[in-house]
Amino acid sequence: MRATVLYGPRDIRFEDREDPKIEKPTDAILRLAATCVCGSDLWPYRGIQKIAQPTPMGHEYCGVVEEVGSAVKTVKPGQFVIGSFCISDNTCPNCRSGYQSGCQNLEFMSRAQAPVLRVPLADGTLVGTPDKPSDQIISSLLAVSDVFGTGWFAADAANVKPGATAVVVGDGAVGLLGVLSAKLMGAERIIIMSRHEKRQRLAKEFGATDIVTERGEEGVARIKDLTNGIGADSVLECVGTEESMVQAIQSTRPGGSVGYVGVPHGMKLDVWPIFFKLVHLHGGPAPVRRYLPELIKLVWDGKAEPGKVFDLVLPLEQVAEGYRAMDERRAIKTLLQP
Amino acid sequence: MRATVLYGPRDIRFEDREDPKIEKPTDAILRLAATCVCGSDLWPYRGIQKIAQPTPMGHEYCGVVEEVGSAVKTVKPGQFVIGSFCISDNTCPNCRSGYQSGCQNLEFMSRAQAPVLRVPLADGTLVGTPDKPSDQIISSLLAVSDVFGTGWFAADAANVKPGATAVVVGDGAVGLLGVLSAKLMGAERIIIMSRHEKRQRLAKEFGATDIVTERGEEGVARIKDLTNGIGADSVLECVGTEESMVQAIQSTRPGGSVGYVGVPHGMKLDVWPIFFKLVHLHGGPAPVRRYLPELIKLVWDGKAEPGKVFDLVLPLEQVAEGYRAMDERRAIKTLLQP
Repeated sequence: MRATVLYGPRDIRFEDREDPKIEKPTDAILRLAATCVCGSDLWPYRGIQKIAQPTPMGHEYCGVVEEVGSAVKTVKPGQFVIGSFCISDNTCPNCRSGYQSGCQNLEFMSRAQAPVLRVPLADGTLVGTPDKPSDQIISSLLAVSDVFGTGWFAADAANVKPGATAVVVGDGAVGLLGVLSAKLMGAERIIIMSRHEKRQRLAKEFGATDIVTERGEEGVARIKDLTNGIGADSVLECVGTEESMVQAIQSTRPGGSVGYVGVPHGMKLDVWPIFFKLVHLHGGPAPVRRYLPELIKLVWDGKAEPGKVFDLVLPLEQVAEGYRAMDERRAIKTLLQP
Repeated sequence: MRATVLYGPRDIRFEDREDPKIEKPTDAILRLAATCVCGSDLWPYRGIQKIAQPTPMGHEYCGVVEEVGSAVKTVKPGQFVIGSFCISDNTCPNCRSGYQSGCQNLEFMSRAQAPVLRVPLADGTLVGTPDKPSDQIISSLLAVSDVFGTGWFAADAANVKPGATAVVVGDGAVGLLGVLSAKLMGAERIIIMSRHEKRQRLAKEFGATDIVTERGEEGVARIKDLTNGIGADSVLECVGTEESMVQAIQSTRPGGSVGYVGVPHGMKLDVWPIFFKLVHLHGGPAPVRRYLPELIKLVWDGKAEPGKVFDLVLPLEQVAEGYRAMDERRAIKTLLQP
């Protein structure tokens, strides 16, 4: 097969790779219906996160099971499945407490920007759809694999409750799906911090009630204005920089919650001002496996269309252009068709 | 009257000060039954936290109301009361959500190492006891004012539940009362990190089941050993240094909670490793006012004796020796009798 490999900064190649095959009895082989480029892929793509060697890329995926190892019990060849970007056994104590992204046998998926994919720990990682999905919902099912699951976790970690005021810091695909998640969880007021007109429109479509274009201290002041000087109940940090994290914390009311899912890069937090803010902080790599059944059902029942974040669809072989478009912020998120 | 003033590093003076009087209609004047020295007083005492001018000291207090301003409704002259170290109106949105330490009219008490004390916002800050207390429980009622309330908040913020495993980082008075709080909240296993024999004994008396003397990475490894390699459900951070905070976070299971109440000094947290630990973080200055009715009742009913942390009792005029004994770790906590 041909698949995606990152060789160095902005050097994405679509090249011959060995076909995946069952390596362990717990593996499954999937023929992918769709895959995509993640905002977090841009860190190594831009050279900010170093890679030691040519690295197969991609961790979002859905498709049809082709083959399973002898120990696999819950998924079968022919079945349409979605998996988390975190590979988990779903049986260890951490998985059982709902933190599959902290699984004792955790691996992070890579290699998914490809037509065929080997998924380890298939029983613990994959969840099937009720039936063969229509083409129309493939993009939304794909989104569940990471970007919707991560936006959902941001909202859950920020403790969004019916009637709450939520702020979303970041207008990338995760932030936008944080808006959708907050809406689905019943938030009454959803404020997105965004300066990008196209993303603002999609945020409104997903349920945002207010747009704040200011950043830093001015942005915090605007949030305070909009919340009677108190701050928001729930703030979703979907960027991962120090500036965005401080902005998120300062926008939260005392006793409120920040859910942070932006992968932190070189972030050193001064704890003194946080201490006096009295906020709850929770976040990390999203335990998408916990949410898969619920989120698949939302998509299946037509109650959520997270696939709307894909505003560029390319054949997989044009993956390099998919990265470029996101790097240059021409696209929110690129879907790749094998 | 004569009262306590800090002039500079290790320069505590007990000197003539003007008698407090009602300044605003919401004030109350208390004649104190007891006051004490707090671990946090040692930061300015040691010169680590700079003071700009001679500073009246003390923020833990209980005693009898002598006089109230014209607007005070809930406390009366003659009544025995306890107040939080945070002065709060108890009516603003932050107070109503249980975060009186984030009150919109917040002041931090000072001046309480004195025989007579003016308490602003008396209705929002003070809570009376059911009756005149016996001398035997004065020390435990005093503890409620900050040190027990703060240990309680650490346990609450760390989400201690019946049957949980809790770790307490820090064997100061707050850490020791964190042990007591975790015990009262139903923790099954309570591990204290301590190297000090006398404090270990008191921790056991309060309900600690295990003692860990190792620190840093070795300490974390011991906690992992004691928790089947998973980490603890709840960790109480009662020190406030970067080392103790990292130790607390690393000792927590994925999805577990860290309650942090040690006032952070120069703490810059690297968020990258925290991100992958998937812990909940909550803390800050304890909203003691929220807990006052419950904690006063626990003491009144004989179900908690937090006053045991006072292992040195001095007349107020010997306050300088009270500071020295704590600075040199000869005393856990000094009670001062006016």
